[in-house]
Amino acid sequence: MKILVTGFDPFGGEKVNPAFEAVKLLPKEIKGAEVIGIEIPTVFTKGPEKVKEAILKYKPDAVLNVGQAGGRCGITVEKVGINYKEARIKDNDGNQPSAQLIKEDGETAYFASIPVKAMVENMRKNNIPSSISYTAGTYVCNDVMYSVLYMLDKEFDGVIGGFVHVPYASEQVLDKANLASMPVETIAKGLEYCIEAIVEFGSNDVDTNLGGTTH
Amino acid sequence: MKILVTGFDPFGGEKVNPAFEAVKLLPKEIKGAEVIGIEIPTVFTKGPEKVKEAILKYKPDAVLNVGQAGGRCGITVEKVGINYKEARIKDNDGNQPSAQLIKEDGETAYFASIPVKAMVENMRKNNIPSSISYTAGTYVCNDVMYSVLYMLDKEFDGVIGGFVHVPYASEQVLDKANLASMPVETIAKGLEYCIEAIVEFGSNDVDTNLGGTTH
Amino acid sequence: MKILVTGFDPFGGEKVNPAFEAVKLLPKEIKGAEVIGIEIPTVFTKGPEKVKEAILKYKPDAVLNVGQAGGRCGITVEKVGINYKEARIKDNDGNQPSAQLIKEDGETAYFASIPVKAMVENMRKNNIPSSISYTAGTYVCNDVMYSVLYMLDKEFDGVIGGFVHVPYASEQVLDKANLASMPVETIAKGLEYCIEAIVEFGSNDVDTNLGGTTH
Amino acid sequence: MKILVTGFDPFGGEKVNPAFEAVKLLPKEIKGAEVIGIEIPTVFTKGPEKVKEAILKYKPDAVLNVGQAGGRCGITVEKVGINYKEARIKDNDGNQPSAQLIKEDGETAYFASIPVKAMVENMRKNNIPSSISYTAGTYVCNDVMYSVLYMLDKEFDGVIGGFVHVPYASEQVLDKANLASMPVETIAKGLEYCIEAIVEFGSNDVDTNLGGTTH
Repeated sequence: MKILVTGFDPFGGEKVNPAFEAVKLLPKEIKGAEVIGIEIPTVFTKGPEKVKEAILKYKPDAVLNVGQAGGRCGITVEKVGINYKEARIKDNDGNQPSAQLIKEDGETAYFASIPVKAMVENMRKNNIPSSISYTAGTYVCNDVMYSVLYMLDKEFDGVIGGFVHVPYASEQVLDKANLASMPVETIAKGLEYCIEAIVEFGSNDVDTNLGGTTH
Repeated sequence: MKILVTGFDPFGGEKVNPAFEAVKLLPKEIKGAEVIGIEIPTVFTKGPEKVKEAILKYKPDAVLNVGQAGGRCGITVEKVGINYKEARIKDNDGNQPSAQLIKEDGETAYFASIPVKAMVENMRKNNIPSSISYTAGTYVCNDVMYSVLYMLDKEFDGVIGGFVHVPYASEQVLDKANLASMPVETIAKGLEYCIEAIVEFGSNDVDTNLGGTTH
Repeated sequence: MKILVTGFDPFGGEKVNPAFEAVKLLPKEIKGAEVIGIEIPTVFTKGPEKVKEAILKYKPDAVLNVGQAGGRCGITVEKVGINYKEARIKDNDGNQPSAQLIKEDGETAYFASIPVKAMVENMRKNNIPSSISYTAGTYVCNDVMYSVLYMLDKEFDGVIGGFVHVPYASEQVLDKANLASMPVETIAKGLEYCIEAIVEFGSNDVDTNLGGTTH
Repeated sequence: MKILVTGFDPFGGEKVNPAFEAVKLLPKEIKGAEVIGIEIPTVFTKGPEKVKEAILKYKPDAVLNVGQAGGRCGITVEKVGINYKEARIKDNDGNQPSAQLIKEDGETAYFASIPVKAMVENMRKNNIPSSISYTAGTYVCNDVMYSVLYMLDKEFDGVIGGFVHVPYASEQVLDKANLASMPVETIAKGLEYCIEAIVEFGSNDVDTNLGGTTH
């Protein structure tokens, strides 16, 4: 099995992006699967294009995109990407779309095809706080998640994909008393447990009740 | 114009549900539109069925479902309902579904057809904190939102619909120092401004950039 | 009985200060007591001086200072003021003290002499979320609280005093999805219930357990 | 130099207390100073008594008490302990005091005599989010902090003391999406950096402005 893992470059004035910092720490092989880590730009449309180039080049069996969700306490595996762009701040190329579709001919949303619940369970089993998230936002993270699931659906039959959001790295919030964070090494371990679950379960997720929401 | 507004009964051990408490305070007429308020049960499938009965009975031009999102600070207008059920706690009939589709033949998600941005803008203009939310959760609120958008799409051509989540009412959190809330009277005013925007804009939303997320 | 109530002018880039906005809405008489509301500057040392001038002028029986604690969900009555200044941002005169005592000859701290618990209870009884706070911070609010309790102790025998922190007013956070707030009218009602308790209980507080903390 | 470090046993239904879990991981020697770690009970009055016994037995130069502050994001060094007990939940002996003084003849408050700012700075320098806290609460943590500073002041001339609050350990919040936490190993490293600063600075704190609050 071959797994392509992507992390974004820094954006929004931050000096690092914990997503790519963690991806860089991943071993080259996890449970027998080959792991290929690449950096992609925090830019609408270009981010997904970079992923596509890498899919064509490496022909992976699974694609795991990783991004920063500043403010979240644990590592979250995203359930769904939506066909929508709305940006509070400019991306790294200066784009700031509002109320736009990502793909005119796309579904309203796609569910992740990686084993979301098994990934969360494997992280928890290994002492890493994690949960399912039901929104990947409307910025470049969702743009990549949605676009990759769209292209897998249309062009890369059998390849599974999905998105993981990680908290701020500790070094990003050293003097900010109210912001949650995680050491980059812990984030990297979390991603490793995610990949273990992908290798073990593929698209056949477990059906444990992991909580959901109460609203 | 005729607008059907629904609010849930209390759940999760709470004595009141701010959604229906606020719906009860709505005037019978807003900007010339007739407002019909009803209570629906916090029960998977039964909640949406009650809405359908009311649609058949009152033949509204718009359906606005209102629910409680405990912990949120402002009134949020939901952008999207997803085809997924996952319950952290039992609903009022004892159901606790996990990892289930709502409709086997439904889309993965539906976007709200009420003017989400115009509603948020009208609340802000009137001093009520509000924003767009991109997840209605996976509990009965999302079950109603998704199911109603599904039925409007399949059976009630031209009727628009969507969902608004309101914070805890003040009386629910009197001694809880860290939980946000809103006076019920303020919540009711917020819903009134939502309905004003529905009357004025129908399904033709404004395209102002209201921020979105940065992840 | 005569009660002096103070509210700060805006600071930190805000256009209003909910403290003084609410003080302005107070009735001139509450439960038979005369209420005198004044504005004081958000400036170290000068804030307390303004209070002293007003005490000399009006000869009140109680002094209630009110300030903004952005981010708090309910109205909090402060238990203690500490002899310490440390400022994250400049005050309205450009001062930014660090690690300084307020009074070289003062106690390390003073407890409020107004009936903290009775005030919290009366707000809760009237549907306003509230609790005791055990830190008034280290900025101008604490400077005023500590300095006023110091001067009451040294120079104004029999006059009681204390501090109430109020949340952001709704209009300050209209588009900030994660910040708690309260309508100014509700804040003003909360202050009115505080004053009712001061009139009724004076310095003889009730001894109900209101919770405290668990750390 | 000899440093006594204490950690509480678990309370409030938790299976572990990250404070003592971290204390157990400390090296026996840090920067040439001997480190003695002990567990103390989460019980009013008994907690401080255990510390006193240990002071008499080990004759340390500094006492560092460590407790859990569930919900905080970083490691916080407490500035002040107050003469007040108010318990939301029972302690491990069933005590639940309300509105009580800790010491009838004690000051209203004591400031920590360990180098609070240098400790925070040293943690930040080593990539651990941390800040000064101005409230140790009103439960057993503050009971220990206040009582120890009281006894150092009255009976153990020259011995310095203070309190550090640590976040939940990761394993306590694995499935709680909104609670901040830290790996126990990271907490232990944080305590090590605190002790380094105590060894280096003693009671002579640095005077850098570390921010304080803005209310």
